Amino acid sequence: MYHLAGMPEPLARLVEQLSAFQGIGPKTAMRLALNMLEQSEHEVKNLAVSLQHLHEQVQFCNTCGGFSTVSHCAICDNVKRQHGIVCIVEQPVDVLMLERGHFQGSYHVLHGRLSPVDGVSPDKLRFNALDNRIADGGIHELILATSATVDGEATAHFISRRYAHHNIQVSRIARGVPEGGELEYLDEYTLSRALEQRVLWEQGHAAASN
Amino acid sequence: MYHLAGMPEPLARLVEQLSAFQGIGPKTAMRLALNMLEQSEHEVKNLAVSLQHLHEQVQFCNTCGGFSTVSHCAICDNVKRQHGIVCIVEQPVDVLMLERGHFQGSYHVLHGRLSPVDGVSPDKLRFNALDNRIADGGIHELILATSATVDGEATAHFISRRYAHHNIQVSRIARGVPEGGELEYLDEYTLSRALEQRVLWEQGHAAASN
Repeated sequence: MYHLAGMPEPLARLVEQLSAFQGIGPKTAMRLALNMLEQSEHEVKNLAVSLQHLHEQVQFCNTCGGFSTVSHCAICDNVKRQHGIVCIVEQPVDVLMLERGHFQGSYHVLHGRLSPVDGVSPDKLRFNALDNRIADGGIHELILATSATVDGEATAHFISRRYAHHNIQVSRIARGVPEGGELEYLDEYTLSRALEQRVLWEQGHAAASN
Repeated sequence: MYHLAGMPEPLARLVEQLSAFQGIGPKTAMRLALNMLEQSEHEVKNLAVSLQHLHEQVQFCNTCGGFSTVSHCAICDNVKRQHGIVCIVEQPVDVLMLERGHFQGSYHVLHGRLSPVDGVSPDKLRFNALDNRIADGGIHELILATSATVDGEATAHFISRRYAHHNIQVSRIARGVPEGGELEYLDEYTLSRALEQRVLWEQGHAAASN
């Protein structure tokens, strides 16, 4: 239904523009465009204004690459945090996800993960910025929090090798059964990994009560 | 993940605005907003411009209520069409859907369907406009093409009663097995209806070859 004869040109253009966004197929774009027409003009204009200024207002921290409205984010500027521990993630949103926990270190956002298939080589990611931060000194641990995918794992391996001779401890976030996860519904890879990386009861219990 | 501490305010506002649209939940809104940030500033600004002018540029035909960029749509203005036959639909997009076939009459868009639960009474729909078109004369058939839902069916009943004494033929679009429909995957209501409204082979065959 996405390319309908007789559709007014401005509507067709909107559908096409919406389709250009990742994850929006032509049918979803059509549904979205029709929803927007049904919405009040006022609300749609407000949305237009937000989009108009989105890229100016939401920028990335010069240091960590996370979301920021100014040149340095609140996490990098916070003197109470342990800036010697840097958690490396793929996307700015990953920082927001991890901030819901109790992590007190800082972050480094790569803005992607290595992917030979998609042509993402190390020079496309924020490795130079990480090199500079490490050269500045003071970092004693890198926590690799790239995704638990093939490319995320390859990226983690790449990082561990890149900084192998820097006298920096490199760790990888744990993989296993998620909280509330019933074994019945988990895939065999997660279960194998959870068995392999089993933790002694005392150690695991101590860690859990921290 | 939709209400994340530390999310820049402009991004949070965009997520909230997107969530206001029907069919977009907070998670989808978050994903959309992040996609838009990843898109080039140029493309997002183009989308903003389209949205800014959407309601001015896409209007509804004064006669039929279908999409139009001017006060009267191309279908209503087309002298070659049979304006004595009016197909009544719920939404402007329904006109576009039906136009993919060979229908040569004109349309009347109600902009909704009767729904006591949602407070949609006849005065909320374009019935006055339809009354006026019928009073102007020349209409000899109404085809009820409201949806095959409980409310769509109730709306069709309402219309058939409203114009019962106008010497106008009233018909309802056929219901049955869709083209390519395998009986195995159809619900029992569709199958019952298809059996009840079975058409004599000669008649059905003649209709199909028109």
